[in-house]
Amino acid sequence: MTELLPFVADLPLVDHHCHGVVTHDLDRMGFERMLTEADTVSPLGTSLFDSLIGLAVRARCAPVLDLPRHAPADDYLARRAELGAAEVNRRFLRSTGITRFLLDGGFLPEPLTTTGEFAALAGSPAEDIVRLEQVAEDVVRAGTGAEGFAAEFAGELAKRTANAVGVKSIAAYRVGLELSGERPSPGEVTAAAGRWLARVEAGEPVRLADEVLHRFLIWSGIDAGLPVQFHVGYGDSDVDLHRCDPLLLTGLLRATRASGVPILLLHNYPFHRNAAYLAQVFEHVFVDTGLITHNAGFRAPAVLAEVLELVPFGKLLFSTDAFGLAELYHLGAALFRQGLSDFLHGALAAAALSEVDAIRLAALAGHENAARVYGLEGRG
Amino acid sequence: MTELLPFVADLPLVDHHCHGVVTHDLDRMGFERMLTEADTVSPLGTSLFDSLIGLAVRARCAPVLDLPRHAPADDYLARRAELGAAEVNRRFLRSTGITRFLLDGGFLPEPLTTTGEFAALAGSPAEDIVRLEQVAEDVVRAGTGAEGFAAEFAGELAKRTANAVGVKSIAAYRVGLELSGERPSPGEVTAAAGRWLARVEAGEPVRLADEVLHRFLIWSGIDAGLPVQFHVGYGDSDVDLHRCDPLLLTGLLRATRASGVPILLLHNYPFHRNAAYLAQVFEHVFVDTGLITHNAGFRAPAVLAEVLELVPFGKLLFSTDAFGLAELYHLGAALFRQGLSDFLHGALAAAALSEVDAIRLAALAGHENAARVYGLEGRG
Amino acid sequence: MTELLPFVADLPLVDHHCHGVVTHDLDRMGFERMLTEADTVSPLGTSLFDSLIGLAVRARCAPVLDLPRHAPADDYLARRAELGAAEVNRRFLRSTGITRFLLDGGFLPEPLTTTGEFAALAGSPAEDIVRLEQVAEDVVRAGTGAEGFAAEFAGELAKRTANAVGVKSIAAYRVGLELSGERPSPGEVTAAAGRWLARVEAGEPVRLADEVLHRFLIWSGIDAGLPVQFHVGYGDSDVDLHRCDPLLLTGLLRATRASGVPILLLHNYPFHRNAAYLAQVFEHVFVDTGLITHNAGFRAPAVLAEVLELVPFGKLLFSTDAFGLAELYHLGAALFRQGLSDFLHGALAAAALSEVDAIRLAALAGHENAARVYGLEGRG
Repeated sequence: MTELLPFVADLPLVDHHCHGVVTHDLDRMGFERMLTEADTVSPLGTSLFDSLIGLAVRARCAPVLDLPRHAPADDYLARRAELGAAEVNRRFLRSTGITRFLLDGGFLPEPLTTTGEFAALAGSPAEDIVRLEQVAEDVVRAGTGAEGFAAEFAGELAKRTANAVGVKSIAAYRVGLELSGERPSPGEVTAAAGRWLARVEAGEPVRLADEVLHRFLIWSGIDAGLPVQFHVGYGDSDVDLHRCDPLLLTGLLRATRASGVPILLLHNYPFHRNAAYLAQVFEHVFVDTGLITHNAGFRAPAVLAEVLELVPFGKLLFSTDAFGLAELYHLGAALFRQGLSDFLHGALAAAALSEVDAIRLAALAGHENAARVYGLEGRG
Repeated sequence: MTELLPFVADLPLVDHHCHGVVTHDLDRMGFERMLTEADTVSPLGTSLFDSLIGLAVRARCAPVLDLPRHAPADDYLARRAELGAAEVNRRFLRSTGITRFLLDGGFLPEPLTTTGEFAALAGSPAEDIVRLEQVAEDVVRAGTGAEGFAAEFAGELAKRTANAVGVKSIAAYRVGLELSGERPSPGEVTAAAGRWLARVEAGEPVRLADEVLHRFLIWSGIDAGLPVQFHVGYGDSDVDLHRCDPLLLTGLLRATRASGVPILLLHNYPFHRNAAYLAQVFEHVFVDTGLITHNAGFRAPAVLAEVLELVPFGKLLFSTDAFGLAELYHLGAALFRQGLSDFLHGALAAAALSEVDAIRLAALAGHENAARVYGLEGRG
Repeated sequence: MTELLPFVADLPLVDHHCHGVVTHDLDRMGFERMLTEADTVSPLGTSLFDSLIGLAVRARCAPVLDLPRHAPADDYLARRAELGAAEVNRRFLRSTGITRFLLDGGFLPEPLTTTGEFAALAGSPAEDIVRLEQVAEDVVRAGTGAEGFAAEFAGELAKRTANAVGVKSIAAYRVGLELSGERPSPGEVTAAAGRWLARVEAGEPVRLADEVLHRFLIWSGIDAGLPVQFHVGYGDSDVDLHRCDPLLLTGLLRATRASGVPILLLHNYPFHRNAAYLAQVFEHVFVDTGLITHNAGFRAPAVLAEVLELVPFGKLLFSTDAFGLAELYHLGAALFRQGLSDFLHGALAAAALSEVDAIRLAALAGHENAARVYGLEGRG
């Protein structure tokens, strides 16, 4: 790690994929459970603070709460409680240099800030990304039939995306990413909706997990001209990670490239080199390294460097994928800056690029690509 | 590479996965054949000494035999023969700083030291890990029927594990790791045993390769509360490496997490980042980087750093997976120390952790995790 | 990056896999389309110059055309046009230190130099690698029947390889690398040829994509004792990259090892560690890192270092996989030298090998392995 290049330290960032924060105080167990993708602390495996993300909290977040670097975890949590969640959230969210947030509000295992509350806390504008599966599940919950599902979904999606800047698919979590490249026919959608509704009527929970319907949702986003985000790779233990390699999307990417609608591959770790390849060869594909950036702590720059082997700088976006803990915004932004700065610093030292280029490329990844892809100019 | 941090240089190590050593002298061909995972030297490909492990032998092992660093391979082997296998074994095994060895005695293509012989040579206690498939094959060799197989296996396993600290599955070598998450029913076990016995009666060698039976064996280990090791990833040319990605175990890991019985993913290369993910999200999963540590020589620290992106320090264990050549213990231990030291040195230089933490985390990976997982406290 | 070690800077290189160059001038769009594996420039993604390969052109190629390092892309292309394609080609091809080229002349989406023209431009001998699928497709175009196909293919292959040094399979692009380890029987070949001919008669283009026939072609190369190259991994958007993991070839590699005929795994990224494993455990398998070396620019040394974790130096070859743009030869050679030099420099600094060894190992990878594998001694 080297000292941040000044133009990276000051770089405005657009966080194109993140979530709200919790507004209540957290005890140690509650904090650790939100720290990584583990559901809980392992009695066999010691504390989750003993990982790079935990060390990063103590190294980089403790000073924001007026503690010395490397303060012990218990001291950190005591100070956090003393300040209270509202102050903690404010401090971290305003320390990031993120000038705009695109929030996925669709995952709420517990109450998080709304987009409006979040923007107020952060002191920066926040936009909505609409989770496709949530819209479909709400349509089913509201009551629909197989024949009417497609039209009702389209109507509801139009309503919810009126002010949104993009949509997101979590097919990875439900059926994996081996999605066909074919647009499903109306008959196939009706048949699939019928199967789903039958399961719901039989008492199963309303949870979309059907390859045809996930595909239908994605094509609905494409048809609406809305950038489509995909969860790819790394996630919690619900994911079958071996079904989440972005290369499995190759057929769908071929089928959608003519649309010109941007497709955003989120996270991607440990398949991030595969994602970078896709971003090189498909005109409409973009990538980020959210989630792993804060999880890998001190090693985040190494992961970013691997992505940059193939991805053009015009195709790389910044995101935190922070969820719940305000620390994760702080770490995601700080470690992205560290990675970008280390990379450019190394390239400058090797005379692999000029400083003028370094400044320009940092701006692309930091905010310009996001502004262009999501059409953020002129908003808010 | 940087000079070893003193607390890593002196760190006691528990080698939780290794094998015996050969006790006879070796000519150059014999030595090279045991040096890597290649079965033999390639007439097309020059010497296996011309790889990072071969260079590591000449750089790190030659001085232990009183030769200059980088002594030529022939000089090295001549000196080895001069000292004799017993003295060579003693020197290397006692140079490692390994305080306890967990030996898998189940793979014996040629005679190796027994656990007792090994402990005497090394001057440190050694415990047994029982290879599940070997128990099953011995039960079949001793004569059994389909109906009685499960009970006879259970009895034999109980007998052999009376003093053992864990069991090991080599399903990876036989059927790959795409194992179902379901516990096989008694009827399924009987049916599978019947199919196997029929093949044996038809003259096939007694070699277990049946997805149901490998799973039955694994669940037997779980039920006995014994930590279960899995061969994962890198191995010799018998392995279908594309069937050995640890992510294929996801279903089985979900199914066994409630048991609280530790599962140890061995080796993992080149899927080590995938294994680290599993160790983060599943409470009972642990990983090591055995085998690749000595094979990658000079590059071992780079591999270890990748694993540490996600694995909590409380979930990382040390192993050599040394087999046959005593040099491999020496290299495995020395290169693990180098990797851990380089990593912590870099983190300290970047102020990513404190020295107090570095010392504590090194102790976890070096020996504390193994002691906790295998219940080694109070033994020997 | 460190300064080139003198024995790497001067190392003669054999480029064992490359293509011809275009002889006409190129505008910016034409140049960018040939720069990476992208088919075209993305209106959404800014210029392909904004990637590591584009930066490498400006950093390393601009001075060859008398421009300052980091000259802007438009200045670069203006200067390129001013000099003219012939002069540009001559300058770059003669700046590489490549002493012999093995050209795959089988991919011609647009006219490229022939092998003879190329050798004249480069001022060094060039040999032919014959693309198996092109031979088969030409046999079909010339008119054949299912029964006669195998013999006519064999005859045509013998004719075309009379002066060639090897053959190449692009099964990866057509059916993926999951090829059976079985040699197809004459009956299977006839049946598969019949199916293909029927499709052609029905009006489909003459394009081989049949697992049996690709395998038949490969075995034909093996039987002829000709080294067989495989496209593996990274390529353009036509490839299903998840079907191009070299591990999928494991069965075929087991089946062909007794032949002693060299198999060359080309490119391999992002599966290069998998390829290195295969080169370690199979006596007849060799690898390179062509294509990614110039694409990864500044990061090429990091990729090469990963390959060297397992591959013996006697199994690593140099290639550019340059196609069309003469710059790609220059970059492929310069960045391979950089990677090899950085690796050896680091190993020397860590006392992981001696300088005598470093010089010897560099010669193996640079040209000796290729000379041995392809029997180049005594040619031209």
